[in-house]
Formats: sequence, structure tokens, C-alpha cells
Amino acid sequence: MADRTKERGPDSSRRAILKGGFALGGAALTGLAASRTAIAQTSDPKITELQDWNRYLGVGVDAAPYGMPSQFEKDVVRRNVPWLTADATSSVNFTPLHELDGIITPNGLCFERHHGGVAEIPPQDHRLMVHGMVDEPLVFIMEDMKRFPRENRVYFLECAANSGMEWRGAQLNGCQYTHGMVHCVMYTGTPLRNVLNAAGVKTAGKWLLAEGADASAMTRSIPMEKALDDCLVAWKMNGEALRPEQGYPLRLVVPGWEGNMWIKWLRRLEVGDAPWEQREETSKYTDLLANGVARKFTWAMDVKSVITNPSPQAPITHGKGRTVLTGLAWSGNGTISRVDVSLDGGRNWVEARIDGPSFDKAAHRFYYDFDWDGSELLLQSRAVDSEGFVQPTKNDLRAARGENSIYHNNGIQTWLLKSDGGLENVEVS
Amino acid sequence: MADRTKERGPDSSRRAILKGGFALGGAALTGLAASRTAIAQTSDPKITELQDWNRYLGVGVDAAPYGMPSQFEKDVVRRNVPWLTADATSSVNFTPLHELDGIITPNGLCFERHHGGVAEIPPQDHRLMVHGMVDEPLVFIMEDMKRFPRENRVYFLECAANSGMEWRGAQLNGCQYTHGMVHCVMYTGTPLRNVLNAAGVKTAGKWLLAEGADASAMTRSIPMEKALDDCLVAWKMNGEALRPEQGYPLRLVVPGWEGNMWIKWLRRLEVGDAPWEQREETSKYTDLLANGVARKFTWAMDVKSVITNPSPQAPITHGKGRTVLTGLAWSGNGTISRVDVSLDGGRNWVEARIDGPSFDKAAHRFYYDFDWDGSELLLQSRAVDSEGFVQPTKNDLRAARGENSIYHNNGIQTWLLKSDGGLENVEVS
Repeated sequence: MADRTKERGPDSSRRAILKGGFALGGAALTGLAASRTAIAQTSDPKITELQDWNRYLGVGVDAAPYGMPSQFEKDVVRRNVPWLTADATSSVNFTPLHELDGIITPNGLCFERHHGGVAEIPPQDHRLMVHGMVDEPLVFIMEDMKRFPRENRVYFLECAANSGMEWRGAQLNGCQYTHGMVHCVMYTGTPLRNVLNAAGVKTAGKWLLAEGADASAMTRSIPMEKALDDCLVAWKMNGEALRPEQGYPLRLVVPGWEGNMWIKWLRRLEVGDAPWEQREETSKYTDLLANGVARKFTWAMDVKSVITNPSPQAPITHGKGRTVLTGLAWSGNGTISRVDVSLDGGRNWVEARIDGPSFDKAAHRFYYDFDWDGSELLLQSRAVDSEGFVQPTKNDLRAARGENSIYHNNGIQTWLLKSDGGLENVEVS
Repeated sequence: MADRTKERGPDSSRRAILKGGFALGGAALTGLAASRTAIAQTSDPKITELQDWNRYLGVGVDAAPYGMPSQFEKDVVRRNVPWLTADATSSVNFTPLHELDGIITPNGLCFERHHGGVAEIPPQDHRLMVHGMVDEPLVFIMEDMKRFPRENRVYFLECAANSGMEWRGAQLNGCQYTHGMVHCVMYTGTPLRNVLNAAGVKTAGKWLLAEGADASAMTRSIPMEKALDDCLVAWKMNGEALRPEQGYPLRLVVPGWEGNMWIKWLRRLEVGDAPWEQREETSKYTDLLANGVARKFTWAMDVKSVITNPSPQAPITHGKGRTVLTGLAWSGNGTISRVDVSLDGGRNWVEARIDGPSFDKAAHRFYYDFDWDGSELLLQSRAVDSEGFVQPTKNDLRAARGENSIYHNNGIQTWLLKSDGGLENVEVS
């Protein structure tokens, strides 16, 4: 290791590992040998020579009133698939899950799904109307909404169509595309029940219609029991105002249920005694089974997980040795109680470590640290939720529901890890 | 209420409250009457007429690969005080606490404190050196750091000088300026002990020197006991890569201790048997007492709180009636066990409601909903932490430490709420 100048990034890392040897058992398990490079043996100019950032002053505190990521992170962005839809105003983009860690999704990277583009609503001009089977119809301005008692809760939001293209086999090469229609943020708002109670829901009022103020006037029917349970009317995400693409200035939060019901730009709540059978809950967001019957009102997002690293967009570049495998797990039924990982396509399973907060109906972060010997592996994760539901295989799902649906695919994802460190989206029988 | 067209924002809200009457006791406490405006009585064009955002498609999913806040939130930014320092490259800006809610600070709004401007470091060129009293000196590249076991934790970071200008009396008119040198995010990284154990700390190694790679080469001495306890070496905040101004690609996280020790652009860790008495822990970041003695190594940030709304930058615009008072509390000693609020300058106290997650050494959000009668009030908050420490008054602090220091002012903040809804930063004897 005479010349460290050749050793940057992946290459240096690979050589360091080969040197480290990784035969240290318990020591290796702590990551001990993962990275040692004795200074005595190095003439790394990054250590021995002054760099520009040591020499010259950087920009000051007046440079970025609202800060942005580093120029070196410019490829960490939401991405859409142009061929997927006819028009970008009724389309989707995807969260770069393979670039993230922890359980919080930064607001700038939360996936978008619009049916009529992003409504830009001046908050002083926004209204929320509550009417129908209520004692007194009401209209709220934003300032009034902020006078209700507030709560802060962390929830995942998943589009019902997330992983939808995988029903008929491995299609897209990267977890951003196969699983990126999910995000998880902390919301601030008031329980929906406070708003409904202000109007006074009549005894016969068993259903709620929520309508958006965007050009698509998105509408969904929600059973009153759910509306009075854990739903929020929210105006903040991760501490700041909702982003326009997430429903600024007001959105409905329907914890654990498909994202389409989390009405953005919320302008109307109507109480009734039956569901409205709206377009978005009949012709769309229903699950067509093999026998031609469509499952309707399949609201809850089932227990699901995915390995985000390594994955096709995030190959292993450090070569053999200590490798951190990580991913996300979530369930619309509650918390995640366990995540298992398989390196051989589901034959053998080992329990992963869940780290960080465990919130009801929120994303959970899991890790499995292992020593990769450079051989081909079939990576899978399988989550179990607090209700005891176990994430199924894709083939189990297909056997039960056929392949006609594009919604509610929570099947186990398989990545083929090749000996060169690259990965592919594959199916296992 | 014939013409709702006049009723936008504050005015409509005020009239709605007067109508609501707020004499409903328990009902008012639920916010029930806060906002009622009977639809039957309104011809609000925002309800009865189509708006542009109902009529026209918005931008599509390809418009913002990395999203930004709404154009209507353009004033929600970090702000600096030009006269405060000679140069913006060795200065500070402030988190807009009065515009935020919950406990997570969005990355783009986390306050900045630089001593040599923002270092822009290509991650592939960054190195972390561990040397001194260790078994084997080591150099890590970023890729190697990411092979250590990872943890995710939420912590507040407060500059020791936060509220420093208040030692000699009320100076700045707004919590962004009096208390805005604090933020709270979720970090992803590896416990510092993993990195130190990889090099092997010798028995005599009782202190750690951490050094930054920026032009100021910021250095601080940290006792080994803390270094091996809960410190992290972090590369992500709120799920994404650290922001440049927060130390990209690598920073030290020293939970509960003054922000100056959270070395950004972390490039060097040296193990020794005594503190280094660096400039930033002797001539700066020490607390000069009235008797001329300087308190040194005052690391922990004491229990503190502030009312963020209403506050001088966020006056009450809705007039009398139901008002949501909210704020933040934090302590370097652990969690916040209780927050009390006073409306009369500290004579009488009522317990506030703490909402949202309660993490060790993290920000806590509190609320107190009350009916404002329009009279002048002196608003204060007082936090108690899990170690039993109670936030002191500013006068108690001055009696104990004089007024020479600019650091560690955790005194109770008072806002004067005037009958017109405006607020001022005031002192109470």
C-alpha cells in the first residue's frame, strides 16, 4: 500500500477489505476490520496535503435563506417514468428510497401522485366546507383551522399502486421504481373528529366524502368509524407547511390506508349515510380478480418491506467483506414487530435489527450486517406486523388474486446480487 | 354576515369568534365554536365560484425533481443579523421557530453557525483520521464509514450562544432571533465508540480531540466517557445526506451538549490524556462570571423552553377567543417531563400539554389552548426535565452568573401580548 493516491472510493475500499481479511469473527461483526488503513503505511494526499476547503473561506450564513442539498447529491431526486402515463399532470414520480436512511422522508423527496397537476392555492383564499348530514354546515378559513387543538404524528403514505407493475413479473430495475410510491413524515394538524364535531354529525351519518380543490376534484368515501378514529386534517409536514404537491394548504391524513384517500388541497367534507361510489373507488382503486370480480374498498395497505441497499440502483462497490444491508418495512395495521432477511431467495431466514422509533402505521428501518464472500445471492426481506400479518410472496398473492390488478401488491421483493456487486430485480419460483 | 366577500383572513375570523361567543365552556375547549360560519348565511365566492386551481391543470410530476416550499411560504426562511458579526463567513443565522410546528426541523431551515464559511467537500475526497493514544492509527473513506453498524436518533442541537444577547435585557424582537439557534433532526450514523474501538483506545486515553476540515479547522476537546456514551458520527439528517452547512459529508453528534462541539466536516479524531485547551474552549465558549472567573467546559445545554406562537413575529390576528399557544422545550439532561405556562408574567402557572414523541435530548412540542379576552398578558413558559431541573428566570441566572457571559442563557422568556394582538420581548422583575 505504498501509493494511496490511487486509492479513492471503491477501489481503495476493496483493497482495504482484502487487507483486513474479515476472518476476525466477533471483531468483524463490530465492523472493526472493515476499514483499517494504517496511517503509518499511507501517504494519502487527502491527509498530508491542504485541500481547498481547508485553505479558503466558504459561503456565509446569508447565502441560502432556505437551504438545499450539496451539489454532490444532485442525482438524489424524485424520478418519473414518462412512458408510464400519457401526461405528467396525471402521473406519478418516485421517492429515491435507495438514497435515504432512517424513517423520515425529506419533504423535497416525497413521491408525487397527481390527477390534475399541482394546485397552487393562496392560503388566504382556501376554504374547507363541512356539510351534509350535520347539525350545522360550516365553512373554515385556514386561520380558523389553526385554532383547533393540534397533534403531531408520524405516518407512512403509500399509493395503492406501489409495486403495481410487478404483478406480472419483475419489471423495473430499482427500488425507487418498484417501491418508491411511499413516504413517511411527521404531520401537524387536528384530529378530523374535531372538525366533524364542530358541525355535529347526525346519527344517520355513517360515511364521509372528502373532496380536493385541485382540477381533478379528487373524491373518496370514508367510513365514519375511520374518520372519527385516527384521521387528521393536516397543514404541516416535517415541521413546515405542507408542500404544494402534498396538498398545501390542507390535506386529509388517513393513517395506514391507500394514499389516494389522503385527499390533498382538502376543500369539502360531506357527511352521508352511504358511500358515494365515486370514479376513484369504482373504475379506479379497485382490485380486479382473476374471476372478473373486483374487490372494492380495499383501504388498508398490507404489511410490506423492501431492501433499499444494496439494490439495483445502489450496487455494492466496496467488494467482499462487511456489508450493511438495510431497508424499510411498514403496515397499515399498526407497527412492525419483526423483519427477517434471506440471502438465498427465501430458503433460510435471519432476523434483521429494527432501529429507530417504532410508530403506529409508520415506516420502520431495518438493518442486517453481514460479511459478503462475493458469491451470488438472492436478497429478500419479509415483514411481520403487530397484528401478526406476514408479508406474502408474490406468487402467493398471484395465486389468490390473479394478475389483473395493479393495486395492493405487498409481495416479497427479490434482488439478485451478482459477484461483481451489481443487482437485478428478479423473480424466484 | 351578508357579504362574506369582505371576510378574508383575520377579519372574517375575528367576526366569526365574536359570533361564536366563546361562553360555551367545555364546548369551547374542544374548539367547537372557534370557527363556525353557517353556510346558509354565507355567499363566500371561494365556495360558490370556481377558482383557477379548480379550473386549470397544475404542473406535473416532472416539474420539481427536488421539491421546494410553496411560493406563498417564501418568507419562511433562516435570517441573519448583519450587524451582529463582522463577516457572514464567521456568523450565524436563525431558525424561524415561529413558523414551525412539531419537533422536526426541516433541513432547509436548520440554523447555521460557521467559523470559516461552508466547506464544500467532494465525498470521495473526504477522509477521517483516528490517531493519538490508539493501538493502530486509521484513516477512513466515506464508503468505509457506511460499513459500520448504523443507528437513527433524534436530537436537538443548540448553540451555546442561543439567547446570548438577552443577558443584559430584552434585545431582539422575535423568537427566531432570541431562541432560533436550535434545531432538531433525526440523524443516521454510527456510534462514535465503534470508530474509536476500531483503532483501539489505549487505557491512558481519557480525552478526544475532534477537528473539522473547514477553513477554521474547528477543534474541541471531549471527555472519553461522553465519546463512548451516546455520541454519533453521522452522515444523514432527516433521511438524506447532511446539508453542506451542517457538515457534509460527516459530522460529530454530541447529544445534549453545546453545538460548537458537534464538529462539522469531521476529519480528525485524536485520543489523548488531557484536554487540548483549544481557542474555542478557552477564549471562546467559556462563561465569564461577575467576579472575573470564567467557567470552562460548560458542555451540557440546560433545560429550556420558549413560546413560539404567539410571539413578536407571529401576532394574534384573529382577535379574541380561542387561541392556540405553542412552543418548544428541550434539555441536554434527558427528556422534558413537564412544561408550565403563565399568562401573568409568572404569578400563576398552568400545565401545558406535551404532544408528539418524547426522545432523549430532543425537542418537545407543547400546547396550551385558551380563550383570550383581549386583555394584555405576559406570556411565559417554564420547562422541567427528567432529571428534575427547572428552567430558571433570567434574573435568577443574572444573580448567579452576572451579565458578562454570552453563553448558556436558558432563562424564562417573556412576551407581552398587547390588546391589538401584537407582542413584544419584555423583562419582568
